[in-house]
Amino acid sequence: MAPTATERAVAELLDQVPGATVEPDALAAAALDRSGARPDGLPAVLVLIRDVVGVQRTLEVAHRHRVPVVPRGAGSGVAGGALAGTGSVVLDLSGLDRILEIDPVDELAVVEAGVITAELDRAAGEHGLRYAPDPASAAISTIGGNVATNAGGMRCVKYGVTRDAVLGLDVVLADGRLISTGRRTVKGVAGLDLTSLFVGSEGALGVVVRATVRLRALPETTLTAAAAYDDVAAAARACVSVARARREPSLLELLDHATLSVVDRAQGTDFATRGRALVVAQAEGPAAADEIAAIAELLAKESTWSERGLDEESSERLVLARRLALPSIERFGRALIEDICVPRSRLVDAFRGVEEIARRTGVDVFTFAHAGDGNLHPIISFDPALAEPPPAVQQAADAIFALAIELGGTVTGEHGIGSLKRAWLAREVGEDSIEVQRSIKAALDPHGLLNPGKAL
Amino acid sequence: MAPTATERAVAELLDQVPGATVEPDALAAAALDRSGARPDGLPAVLVLIRDVVGVQRTLEVAHRHRVPVVPRGAGSGVAGGALAGTGSVVLDLSGLDRILEIDPVDELAVVEAGVITAELDRAAGEHGLRYAPDPASAAISTIGGNVATNAGGMRCVKYGVTRDAVLGLDVVLADGRLISTGRRTVKGVAGLDLTSLFVGSEGALGVVVRATVRLRALPETTLTAAAAYDDVAAAARACVSVARARREPSLLELLDHATLSVVDRAQGTDFATRGRALVVAQAEGPAAADEIAAIAELLAKESTWSERGLDEESSERLVLARRLALPSIERFGRALIEDICVPRSRLVDAFRGVEEIARRTGVDVFTFAHAGDGNLHPIISFDPALAEPPPAVQQAADAIFALAIELGGTVTGEHGIGSLKRAWLAREVGEDSIEVQRSIKAALDPHGLLNPGKAL
Repeated sequence: MAPTATERAVAELLDQVPGATVEPDALAAAALDRSGARPDGLPAVLVLIRDVVGVQRTLEVAHRHRVPVVPRGAGSGVAGGALAGTGSVVLDLSGLDRILEIDPVDELAVVEAGVITAELDRAAGEHGLRYAPDPASAAISTIGGNVATNAGGMRCVKYGVTRDAVLGLDVVLADGRLISTGRRTVKGVAGLDLTSLFVGSEGALGVVVRATVRLRALPETTLTAAAAYDDVAAAARACVSVARARREPSLLELLDHATLSVVDRAQGTDFATRGRALVVAQAEGPAAADEIAAIAELLAKESTWSERGLDEESSERLVLARRLALPSIERFGRALIEDICVPRSRLVDAFRGVEEIARRTGVDVFTFAHAGDGNLHPIISFDPALAEPPPAVQQAADAIFALAIELGGTVTGEHGIGSLKRAWLAREVGEDSIEVQRSIKAALDPHGLLNPGKAL
Repeated sequence: MAPTATERAVAELLDQVPGATVEPDALAAAALDRSGARPDGLPAVLVLIRDVVGVQRTLEVAHRHRVPVVPRGAGSGVAGGALAGTGSVVLDLSGLDRILEIDPVDELAVVEAGVITAELDRAAGEHGLRYAPDPASAAISTIGGNVATNAGGMRCVKYGVTRDAVLGLDVVLADGRLISTGRRTVKGVAGLDLTSLFVGSEGALGVVVRATVRLRALPETTLTAAAAYDDVAAAARACVSVARARREPSLLELLDHATLSVVDRAQGTDFATRGRALVVAQAEGPAAADEIAAIAELLAKESTWSERGLDEESSERLVLARRLALPSIERFGRALIEDICVPRSRLVDAFRGVEEIARRTGVDVFTFAHAGDGNLHPIISFDPALAEPPPAVQQAADAIFALAIELGGTVTGEHGIGSLKRAWLAREVGEDSIEVQRSIKAALDPHGLLNPGKAL
């Protein structure tokens, strides 16, 4: 029998591209990401990329044989954007991990896609700079993955998301050609903004291999305040009052009672004793002292407990509670990680709505939020022994998505559509918009080979 | 003889769309913009748009008859983006001038495309907010035009450009369908970022009829410092030192000696007596006092004259000198307005290079700059009696573009490619990138009817 297109592509890749492997355990691991979802089978081949030419060569081969390609960084995505189904070519970019340049005057870095986000931040720190976007996954996720999902984080409330930090990209197109987008200048309007188009496109338009990113001054001062409340609505009202007063926190996080309790249970802390919801705020920069004082006063109003002028250790413990929220939940159950974002003015309605959905469906929902951005993460937890989420979990998730849209928000603030939220995309943006998006996808990837079944 | 497609389209528009006119003076005026360039003839029809449905109906008719459409706002663009050639349909959006909503909690406004930028800023001010992007044309340009060119301005050094202020758009597609992009939330990653794609696309992908824009807190304090220097390189070095010190000015402008002299000549001021180059800086917000003190100290170092803690009147006079630079130049000659942007670290080289080009070509070049962004406006002036710029003017302009690219910059920081810089686009971004851009254009505008011959 003549070999299939996939078999021919695999043979060529094994022959021509260093790092190509069909080792079964490697394939099994390369099929998955942190979404916990399972693809329909195993990829055909994994390419552990060593250089940009390897990406180009792999895409040329895949393009010639019309075989689908799934790019992946650290596989830390939670929306299923890196799941690799039967017969696909997985491009593992984590080996492209060089920081090529840090320019302290132009305040930018040029990095390969596989650089770990926290590593870049650390390297920038040696120049008194930092990479502002700080997804909770910063210690494990890659810049390429952050670009693919337009990752957010805690500091975004002041400094913006990944898109705001990306000046330019090197992208390998579906047919293997390499283009550069954007520039090293902070301004520039020559041609269409391909940079922004590729940011957040979840590998469906091209493979990002290199990024030129903005760095920002590392603030000398970071000050923290915290407050606890009788209920989550009061905590949400306090967060809205910060925005109303035009304060500018560099971090404004809210944790509900379920989250505080599970953190305590997992970490041996006692956050839940303070109240049924906790808000942590930080302010940075030369006006930090005035800013945090004003924020602390606003937070204290309806609170049952509040503290300002926290020392570094207490501050870190509070921020750590937030960082440990998801790992703590995952200690005791499988987690379906949601990521809705609503206009700040609807924050109270969003928290109330999620509580009501949890009650109605009877599922366990733990909610924490980048409250300053209106970005809630309701985490639905269920029995890890189950192969699939039970129906009530999907009902709760769907109700949460519907709530987000009803409140004028979005079904994904920072994690992406991936595989898991595709059904909701059209409901949010409309069929005509989807059609425009598909036409752009077709223009860049006419055979539909790049991360098929994701994002769009 | 059977009527042509254009004649049929004109007849239908006159019959069906309120505001359509073929009045010759109106057509002649609608053919031009502030670039000073002249299109190849007269448009066939002008539609003074009254509502979004009028835009849809006009595009449906133009699409059916395959007639080109040129959208325009105030016609204040300087790159020829709104020039309307023979047989085109001009869509004048300046009548779509309603501010539909200002939300002080979510800090956003929803406006129609024809709203004057300064009007929006003023309306936001009533809520203690402002619209941050402030192109020099703010008093006459429209939000739709700002979106089309991704307009910059003086405050961009701190607050970013138009793209950073746009949350979502309503866009009429080439065939008349209306889509909404983006959202009212500050974060959101559902689907491709069509919003950023339309921003800066100069009307070549769709017609923006409505925008949801971010507003920002109006700062309580704005403080100003200024310094003069023996030569423009020293002034540029001072500006770079501000960036190196990680200061955060809200405005950092540089005017060269030619500019100071022509402002003095036109306005009866005496700025040129202070030195051969002037730098004006501002700082805003709660840390303004510390910030401006640090900036003033940096600026003073190599200066021949410096002043800090300027009162409001002196501050306004200095900023006014900057605002009046272009009108002053235009009092005495026709101006070719250039708009290069280089990495901040190359600012000194850029100023020296422009000076050298002026010497070599013998043309008059007046240069002022958004120095904090590395964005220079070298204005080439020539005899207004001439029908066309003399060859030396084009040589100087080409040399300035080449210099920008050589220094790792761009041929347009904030004005757009329009009609005038198309030849330089491919040199800057490369043929493969142009091809990708053209494929996106073809996906959204398959018959090439939207602002043909512009931007790409």
